[in-house]
Amino acid sequence: MLDNTYSVFLPEHWLTLFAPGAAICAILYGFISIKWINAQPACTEQMQAIAAAIQEGAQAYLSRQYKIIALVGIILFAIIAFSLNWETAGGFVIGSTFSAMAGFIGMHVSVRANARTAQAAAYTGINRAFLIAIRGGSITGMLVAGLGLLAVSGYYEMLLASGVHEPLQAMIGVAFGASLIAVFARLGGGIFTKGADVGADLVGKLEAGIPEDDPRNPAVIADQVGDNVGDCAGMGADLFESYTASIIGTMILADILVTGSNNIQLYPLVLVGISILTSIVGIFCIRIGINGNIIAALYSGLIVTAVLTVLIYYPVTQWMLGETLIIGGKTVPSINLFYSAITGLALMAALMPVTVYYTSSDYAPVRYIAKASTTGHGTNVIAGLSVSMKATAAPIILICASMWLSYQLAGLFGIAMASVGMMSLTGLIVAMDAYGPITDNAGGIVEMAKLPEEIRKMTDALDAVGNTTKAVTKGSDLGCAGLAALVLFSDYTTELGGLVCDLGDIRVILGLLLGALIPYLCSALAMEAVGKAAGDIVNEVRRQFKEIPGIMDYTAKPDYSRAVDILTISAIKKMLVPALLPVCIPVIVGFTLGKEALGGVLIGSIISGLCLAISMSVGGGAFDNAKKFIEAGHHGGKGSLAHKASITGDTVGDPYKDTAGPAVNIIMKIVNIIALLIAPLL
Amino acid sequence: MLDNTYSVFLPEHWLTLFAPGAAICAILYGFISIKWINAQPACTEQMQAIAAAIQEGAQAYLSRQYKIIALVGIILFAIIAFSLNWETAGGFVIGSTFSAMAGFIGMHVSVRANARTAQAAAYTGINRAFLIAIRGGSITGMLVAGLGLLAVSGYYEMLLASGVHEPLQAMIGVAFGASLIAVFARLGGGIFTKGADVGADLVGKLEAGIPEDDPRNPAVIADQVGDNVGDCAGMGADLFESYTASIIGTMILADILVTGSNNIQLYPLVLVGISILTSIVGIFCIRIGINGNIIAALYSGLIVTAVLTVLIYYPVTQWMLGETLIIGGKTVPSINLFYSAITGLALMAALMPVTVYYTSSDYAPVRYIAKASTTGHGTNVIAGLSVSMKATAAPIILICASMWLSYQLAGLFGIAMASVGMMSLTGLIVAMDAYGPITDNAGGIVEMAKLPEEIRKMTDALDAVGNTTKAVTKGSDLGCAGLAALVLFSDYTTELGGLVCDLGDIRVILGLLLGALIPYLCSALAMEAVGKAAGDIVNEVRRQFKEIPGIMDYTAKPDYSRAVDILTISAIKKMLVPALLPVCIPVIVGFTLGKEALGGVLIGSIISGLCLAISMSVGGGAFDNAKKFIEAGHHGGKGSLAHKASITGDTVGDPYKDTAGPAVNIIMKIVNIIALLIAPLL
Repeated sequence: MLDNTYSVFLPEHWLTLFAPGAAICAILYGFISIKWINAQPACTEQMQAIAAAIQEGAQAYLSRQYKIIALVGIILFAIIAFSLNWETAGGFVIGSTFSAMAGFIGMHVSVRANARTAQAAAYTGINRAFLIAIRGGSITGMLVAGLGLLAVSGYYEMLLASGVHEPLQAMIGVAFGASLIAVFARLGGGIFTKGADVGADLVGKLEAGIPEDDPRNPAVIADQVGDNVGDCAGMGADLFESYTASIIGTMILADILVTGSNNIQLYPLVLVGISILTSIVGIFCIRIGINGNIIAALYSGLIVTAVLTVLIYYPVTQWMLGETLIIGGKTVPSINLFYSAITGLALMAALMPVTVYYTSSDYAPVRYIAKASTTGHGTNVIAGLSVSMKATAAPIILICASMWLSYQLAGLFGIAMASVGMMSLTGLIVAMDAYGPITDNAGGIVEMAKLPEEIRKMTDALDAVGNTTKAVTKGSDLGCAGLAALVLFSDYTTELGGLVCDLGDIRVILGLLLGALIPYLCSALAMEAVGKAAGDIVNEVRRQFKEIPGIMDYTAKPDYSRAVDILTISAIKKMLVPALLPVCIPVIVGFTLGKEALGGVLIGSIISGLCLAISMSVGGGAFDNAKKFIEAGHHGGKGSLAHKASITGDTVGDPYKDTAGPAVNIIMKIVNIIALLIAPLL
Repeated sequence: MLDNTYSVFLPEHWLTLFAPGAAICAILYGFISIKWINAQPACTEQMQAIAAAIQEGAQAYLSRQYKIIALVGIILFAIIAFSLNWETAGGFVIGSTFSAMAGFIGMHVSVRANARTAQAAAYTGINRAFLIAIRGGSITGMLVAGLGLLAVSGYYEMLLASGVHEPLQAMIGVAFGASLIAVFARLGGGIFTKGADVGADLVGKLEAGIPEDDPRNPAVIADQVGDNVGDCAGMGADLFESYTASIIGTMILADILVTGSNNIQLYPLVLVGISILTSIVGIFCIRIGINGNIIAALYSGLIVTAVLTVLIYYPVTQWMLGETLIIGGKTVPSINLFYSAITGLALMAALMPVTVYYTSSDYAPVRYIAKASTTGHGTNVIAGLSVSMKATAAPIILICASMWLSYQLAGLFGIAMASVGMMSLTGLIVAMDAYGPITDNAGGIVEMAKLPEEIRKMTDALDAVGNTTKAVTKGSDLGCAGLAALVLFSDYTTELGGLVCDLGDIRVILGLLLGALIPYLCSALAMEAVGKAAGDIVNEVRRQFKEIPGIMDYTAKPDYSRAVDILTISAIKKMLVPALLPVCIPVIVGFTLGKEALGGVLIGSIISGLCLAISMSVGGGAFDNAKKFIEAGHHGGKGSLAHKASITGDTVGDPYKDTAGPAVNIIMKIVNIIALLIAPLL
């Protein structure tokens, strides 16, 4: 199977087994770490009780969410099986099951690591607490990467072994399965978490004047549950989807565009496999140095992984692909694929400081929002919205530059390789992201258990970093989504034999306009759902404050479970329409207006989706940190008019950054995957 | 010149003179009406003093604004003259001068009609007041239409008479001149008016607890000035631009695509000329009936004009164009052009109820925002933003449907004719829009002159209709902009010999992404400018309240002129960058990434611009009316928590609907006009 002199020394099957092998390593890492977490000292009974309430709520929500998804999934499975084929339907099952597993296990760990982090903060110290939190996060990270790669490489090998006619067509099913879980998890989880967060803030902070995470707030447990189902399970499913979609999109393009090496299909799988191994090394390098800088500790892990990855990719590329390849009819030096992958990595590295600039209180944009808060709620929101729109420019220009560069290197396949390059750090990125809800919860538990102020300060320090990493990972996530969606679109046009979608063709224009609507509609529905859920929470909390008079002086306990129930029902109900819109619209357009119009829909959804997703994700982060900046004592600090105005902005930013923004990210890809699925029928 | 049997009875020059003749009729109507307005009884000295302060501020602002534009214009004139030719540069001067004239005269009348409307309300009755207000508005309307058509048809005849080689190329200069004035007037005027409005509301209503238009508020005169420079001069320039761009775009397409009739160039000019005459008839039909329904009176004018227009277009089409035409190589019945124009009219008619649905307090969306206000500022803004995003769907689907239909009728030229059809009602639409600031000002004068409550109620009734017509005209304006921009894009590709912009071409994708950024960046800058100006006003008003203690008990007069000065300086300064971005980006992309990428920029700006403009314009109106709904006594009425929350939403919606949204409308077209201008150089 190997076709060049470098590779004759190695047996052929070694290479095909490498990716599944690396995936299994990641999964093993995950299970060993779970054991390690569970072995950490358990905490006081009171803390355990709080943690148990969070666990219970999260598990109850997730099982209800998965039940609904299973129902939708069964219908879609039947449609795929009968209109396409059983292999694609099988892929759909594998993609969705593996993604659900990653989310479920990740959350299972997260709701256990939180109490142990709180315990370590209280009795051992910040270094130990940090270690538990990041180890907990890394479990989700490595499971996402490991299960993702296992789904793709394992199913691919299986299909090859069973001699299926078009294995890559069936692989689209895997990507679709992953997308479906992702869009539901992001929307459902996002509605839950932000409904809780906004509701708790509005009524707790603004009306009752009690601090965040105060046990007197009847929505406080729901807020903690939300962190887990939204930021942990939702985000895991999201990146699982980016991961599988990028790899599968690249394999399809390789099949159509590239000749000159038999290894070209395996090449992206091998690169991703390598990155899993280097990520595990990176995680073990995360240690707080003597200066106590937490963010530096996290970055050191990223840097180790990135450097190792680059160092290994180079010889592997030479060894696997030989001197030259023929890509789209042109002879291209194989090493250009390596450079393309590095372009992706560089894009990710470049997006991080840009996102930090717009969302960190150290820079002008957040300070401008904070200052605008001094003149009222209105000017705060206007400032935040203007920052959110302005923040689109730099990321989009960077994405354009990396597309242009990787295209120069290896044509459309270069862009695909850039998207694979971006995925190299997925394990670590998810780990850093999943670290957030663990420390956030730990802080909540400390507050609710009324532990001393110093311990709360410690968990706050851990949590503050979580907010930065969340912004950073969001930035990179957007880049991934943009590239991955474009790769899927290229798959679509090449699958249809080089379909030309000319802007002078009215069908393409109609498609573009209709496609551009999808992100708007889904965002609108997501925002509306959060707004309504938050409104329900406000009314419920007001009711409890009124009907249970002892709450405020701690003589009566609020009924936490009511808030959890309200949010569960409302999230499950409201996620259906926005999740199914991006599935239905491409099918309708494809079969009525034709394949050119569908091409327009795909690009239209990417163009408007990318702008909208960046502006909402980044803008939301900026709103949030403007509030934190004021809470740190600026412009009058807590309780001032500016603070109240900044809370309004934060509540607007919440569904922006954690519900609508991330959902749009997935929607761009799901639309393209659907188009790829129905392409043979058009 | 006429090529068919229907037309032999009429001398040739009659037809070429028809459009300029109709244009002159409109201008004559304008000047006669100005005399009529000035002959109306002048009001009390106190009212005159207030009106004079508004006049002074508005004129001072406008002359400063025009000075800056003249400076930019001279530079652009030189660039056009030397890089292209003198004819195009001449067109640029005519387009910009005529547009500036329409705005200036319109505003001049508006600031005189306001006091006379107040006077009539106080001493004659609502019918007379209404008549003065609508007559005042109709002057701006007919001057916009008349001067617009005169610029286009007059300059075209002049170029033909002087035997210029490519007269239509030079006509693009006219469109560009109009665009330049429009973008500056919309941005500058929008920043001024909304800075004043938001600032006055935040500090007056929310902090000091005084009603709108209260003479104690130091920003109250600035607010009235803003209504005139934004809603009257800004909006007039905006529609002047839509008007000329649509007609010129259609003439260019006719030249390239259509053969089979020598009249085809004159055809759009004649249709527009007819609509001017029918509009004058329509204006005279606007009378309040015995039931006293104001909105019905306005609609009756629209309906008369629309019906007359359709009845006359039909025979004129048959008579001018004969049986068939050859459009883009296909034989098409000429009457299809009539149906295309009617499609445009129908689109306009369909957009009106849709906009009303989303912005009127009689329907679900506004009531939903009002209800969300009861749970706080945050949920109010979230609800408003979700309505604003949701509101994109119906208009865009309607625009797509009309594009598809008119394309089926007569190809790309059908879409152009639809855009001309939409323009038929421009005179009346502008009249209805310019009616707004007159009644708004009249109310302000009544309030400030402390006239009895019943008179204020009368002007409020007149003003409430102004808010509805503003929303309606905005909806139709968006449709016009979308179609006109697409027509200009078709001009661009056909000018370049049928340029193919394939979505599989990476340059097109990069162009689309960069083009999509333009509306985001300009909106961000516009919002930021309003936010900052409003913040300055808040601080200034707070300062005056503190340093001039007699203001609150009417013993001291606030310093009104400071607020006007602050806004003038900040509007002039902040309008430059967002106005020049859409001029510069296409030039840069065109000369670096090439004509395919520029094609992408054009469509990218239309796609993202249309979504953004609709969501901002409609969303802003919804926010505004949710506040009015609460002020009418719902959810606790004035002074309640819900009311405060709804004021926050209103201040966010203000720059959305009156600064950023309308500016994006123009930006979509300016980008396309620039591309057309530089097309010969690419």
